[in-house]
Amino acid sequence: MRLVVIGGVAAGLSAAARARRIDKSLDITVLEKGDWISWAACGLPYYIGGQTKSLDDLVRYTPEQFARERNITVRTRAEAAVIAHSRREVVLNGGEKIHYDRLVIATGARPALGGIEGIEQKHIFTLNTLSDARRLREFICARRPRTAAVIGGGYVGLEAVEALRANGLKVTLISKDSRILGRGDATLTNAVTAQLERFGVEFRTGTIVRKIDSIPHDLVVLATGFKPNIEIAADGGIEIGRTGAIRVTERMETNLSGVFAAGDCAEATHLVTGRAAYIPLGTTANKMGRVAGACAAGARESFPGVVGTLIVRVCGLGVGMTGLAPGQAKSEGFDVVSTVIEAPVRPGYYTEYHGSQKTQIELVADRKTGRLLGGTVIGDEGVAGRVNVIATALHARIKVDEFAQFDFAYAPPFAPVWDPLLIAAQQLEKLL
Amino acid sequence: MRLVVIGGVAAGLSAAARARRIDKSLDITVLEKGDWISWAACGLPYYIGGQTKSLDDLVRYTPEQFARERNITVRTRAEAAVIAHSRREVVLNGGEKIHYDRLVIATGARPALGGIEGIEQKHIFTLNTLSDARRLREFICARRPRTAAVIGGGYVGLEAVEALRANGLKVTLISKDSRILGRGDATLTNAVTAQLERFGVEFRTGTIVRKIDSIPHDLVVLATGFKPNIEIAADGGIEIGRTGAIRVTERMETNLSGVFAAGDCAEATHLVTGRAAYIPLGTTANKMGRVAGACAAGARESFPGVVGTLIVRVCGLGVGMTGLAPGQAKSEGFDVVSTVIEAPVRPGYYTEYHGSQKTQIELVADRKTGRLLGGTVIGDEGVAGRVNVIATALHARIKVDEFAQFDFAYAPPFAPVWDPLLIAAQQLEKLL
Repeated sequence: MRLVVIGGVAAGLSAAARARRIDKSLDITVLEKGDWISWAACGLPYYIGGQTKSLDDLVRYTPEQFARERNITVRTRAEAAVIAHSRREVVLNGGEKIHYDRLVIATGARPALGGIEGIEQKHIFTLNTLSDARRLREFICARRPRTAAVIGGGYVGLEAVEALRANGLKVTLISKDSRILGRGDATLTNAVTAQLERFGVEFRTGTIVRKIDSIPHDLVVLATGFKPNIEIAADGGIEIGRTGAIRVTERMETNLSGVFAAGDCAEATHLVTGRAAYIPLGTTANKMGRVAGACAAGARESFPGVVGTLIVRVCGLGVGMTGLAPGQAKSEGFDVVSTVIEAPVRPGYYTEYHGSQKTQIELVADRKTGRLLGGTVIGDEGVAGRVNVIATALHARIKVDEFAQFDFAYAPPFAPVWDPLLIAAQQLEKLL
Repeated sequence: MRLVVIGGVAAGLSAAARARRIDKSLDITVLEKGDWISWAACGLPYYIGGQTKSLDDLVRYTPEQFARERNITVRTRAEAAVIAHSRREVVLNGGEKIHYDRLVIATGARPALGGIEGIEQKHIFTLNTLSDARRLREFICARRPRTAAVIGGGYVGLEAVEALRANGLKVTLISKDSRILGRGDATLTNAVTAQLERFGVEFRTGTIVRKIDSIPHDLVVLATGFKPNIEIAADGGIEIGRTGAIRVTERMETNLSGVFAAGDCAEATHLVTGRAAYIPLGTTANKMGRVAGACAAGARESFPGVVGTLIVRVCGLGVGMTGLAPGQAKSEGFDVVSTVIEAPVRPGYYTEYHGSQKTQIELVADRKTGRLLGGTVIGDEGVAGRVNVIATALHARIKVDEFAQFDFAYAPPFAPVWDPLLIAAQQLEKLL
């Protein structure tokens, strides 16, 4: 029995490794169109920013390791061109046919660059692959650019801004939306805008760039979002969901029996709305990949979905979010109540640490059911932890009045007696 | 209608303030036996350690503020001696009688010192009140002691050790149990023991101190636990629970109608075991106080209980726990499965921060139901956040296989792609 996996990064390799753990006898082949496998796309901005010294550090495994340690064949420069499911064959670009019994599609995503003219120029970059990052870093070192524009107010754009500022460039962030991170959230946008201003970053919102030449900067990074690589899947008869990504069951199976999809090419259920969403992220890709691999190897596992958790550092400021922003919740038909609080992260009498001693928290709930729908956490400390607490509450469908009583850790070096999460929940309770 | 509150610290003042918010016309009197109100007991070790400069910083409100801002009468040096419920009277030590319609008992706790001889000496201290802390600090400054012993391996003992080390003393920690923090947890004990060794603290376990003179140290801190102040309640006909603290309903009401209890003198339901527990902590006291005050003022609120969350810093190391340790869970009749993992708190390629890049996590579950029962988190970073995530999962009665799929925040400056919590949960899943 042969499992073929298309894609040798997060989801694909998670699937292959997990399938091997479940079935020692499976014949497993991974097809990767690029030169490298198992590299950390999320690390690219930090290679530009200098926190990661070498691109090699971003590559975790080699094909040789997969062969030796897991008995998995990994082929690089092997681009799948056709999925012929009736014959259970993947046809490579060069014409070679590879038989499969089970197939995992983990073709990932590519930058969505639609409609911008002039992007083929030498000073234009995306930040999607190791080659992209190498080219950008070399350009910065060789050309010493002084100004940069980043197009796109998503997390990649914000990470690129921080990385370019760390290189001493004067940076302009250009976003087509008036609000950032695709959440339409005013609180979030205001906090990030203030932080960008503090770091001398010009932020132009509501600006659609049609021609690169209209932006007179020494360097431009395009961070205009992702497009799932679904073409060979769609051509092979695999169903695409409303989001434009591959539709999968909880077992990560597509409409074709024995064909699974995982990672940035696939949809996931948003557990707050109950509907399919396209939120391509490394964590989700790994989780989906594990389940796809397990199920492809015959196990019964499932991936219920995501709650939309995201964290990004903006010029040193931690910005995390999960679930729905107030506007998103409203569009989903909820009767939205929300609150924003700012509260200290330690008791006032505890003076050991410097930096902002406050964190800002936005909580969103449904008035009808009292259920928590989402939250945003902004601050210098404890952002990931507090976002993860809210994410856990969303997974568990917790109500605000329950949340307001939760038994959180307290000691002066770590938190105030009323954790900011509890203060936010109490505040929100009053509005329900 | 008059509400009388016995006790002017965390629970008592929370109750009074909350009652006022609910009923503007209530006549509210708080009776505090000591000189100060509204002081942060949890801050005392940090005054000794130097992170809090002045004892005044630990006092949040004065009686005058309560009178002016909330129209609440706060009487200090007013010690309640008798509760005469048939006459709805509190009798003060001096004989004065104070009528109540509703009563909140928030008498707190005192150090449990049972059976140690010689504790009246000048070099012996507890760390329970502002006066205790002042006397200890003055002793350290005036006498320049070189060695100290701390008796008690609970969180107060561990905080006292850190504070005394910060003053340059050679410290010995003496615990009657072989394991610390009253959880019988080997993982926790080993990690804390290693940290104490690193800081040159001698740790003597399984040692019961009967005579102070058997300990040849310049200074001794007694941190042998707390005893709830329940005597006047018990004498007044109020029921005491199996734990030795005052038994209350979810509304914080005692067996006497209209008489509430809250804080360190009262029990709370442990939501993992479903049984009453005595875990006196500032956070819980505040939450109980709020609910007691609300209900005393006629509102319908409830405090469901705690999950046993605790965090303590041990010579710089963060040590957090929630729910049940493996041995505790076993005693409660669960079919216990547990695992301990150590995992990095950021991707290996992200090199910006120093310090230990790892955290240790223990998760405990019930084999029969798959339900998470508890967890311990130890490390330099992110301890409170991860403990709070586990606490949230305990409140929500989450199963390990659900937890292992949760959508936690990921970006290289904040966390690795598989958060240590997910790694621990996956590991535990394999054992179920």
